Amino acid sequence: MLGRVNHVAIAVTDLAAATECYSGTLGAKVSSPMALPEHGVTVVFVELPNTKIELLEPLGETSPIRAFLDKNPSGGIHHICYEVEDIKAARAHLTGQGARVLGDGEPRIGAHGKPVLFLHPKDFFGTLIELEQV
Amino acid sequence: MLGRVNHVAIAVTDLAAATECYSGTLGAKVSSPMALPEHGVTVVFVELPNTKIELLEPLGETSPIRAFLDKNPSGGIHHICYEVEDIKAARAHLTGQGARVLGDGEPRIGAHGKPVLFLHPKDFFGTLIELEQV
Repeated sequence: MLGRVNHVAIAVTDLAAATECYSGTLGAKVSSPMALPEHGVTVVFVELPNTKIELLEPLGETSPIRAFLDKNPSGGIHHICYEVEDIKAARAHLTGQGARVLGDGEPRIGAHGKPVLFLHPKDFFGTLIELEQV
Repeated sequence: MLGRVNHVAIAVTDLAAATECYSGTLGAKVSSPMALPEHGVTVVFVELPNTKIELLEPLGETSPIRAFLDKNPSGGIHHICYEVEDIKAARAHLTGQGARVLGDGEPRIGAHGKPVLFLHPKDFFGTLIELEQV
């Protein structure tokens, strides 16, 4: 079921400094910052040959990464996003195995304009997993 | 400087259960467990089309992932490993920018038989970064 790793997301409190670090110190190609108010984050894409890193900074008071940064004030690896062919089939399979989908359980349109959902980290050994239909 | 994401490492306390989850529930191809006593872990590789996930379980009393699991008892994403062409050139560049290499600073032979080093997470926004020369 799991396809490619679409991205690994890293939450940070200072996106400009993190972007400079990945671009300058680590020598990677980075995008311009993109504000996604409907997702409560501003994102910078770090382009690598086989996948990408997404640097996320909270945007707005109800940002979904705020609690993570309260617990991890330096920042940290927030989630892994895997591609799936059919997100509703994936959801049916996973919930049939007892896994929980976050929120109301319905796929929503993610940062790349494609349907996504998040799986409960307690069902996956502490790892927050995003699935994206491609 | 950063090349491909070689792997994302996830620390778990029950490798057999995590392997069954990635294989059965998530439908991914997984390897047999491999004990790496010199690295203090037992590892299972989850093969994906563009990279891999490494599930790590502590092995021995001085496992380097023990403290992480004490802080994160459910498990969690432990580090990201990037490929570099020349690990000593990468180290020279990074330390020249003020980044710190863990341990004695010397590359050692990693789980894949290639030179690796780890960068201090405090210098990279809370993310533990492994570099592997390929």
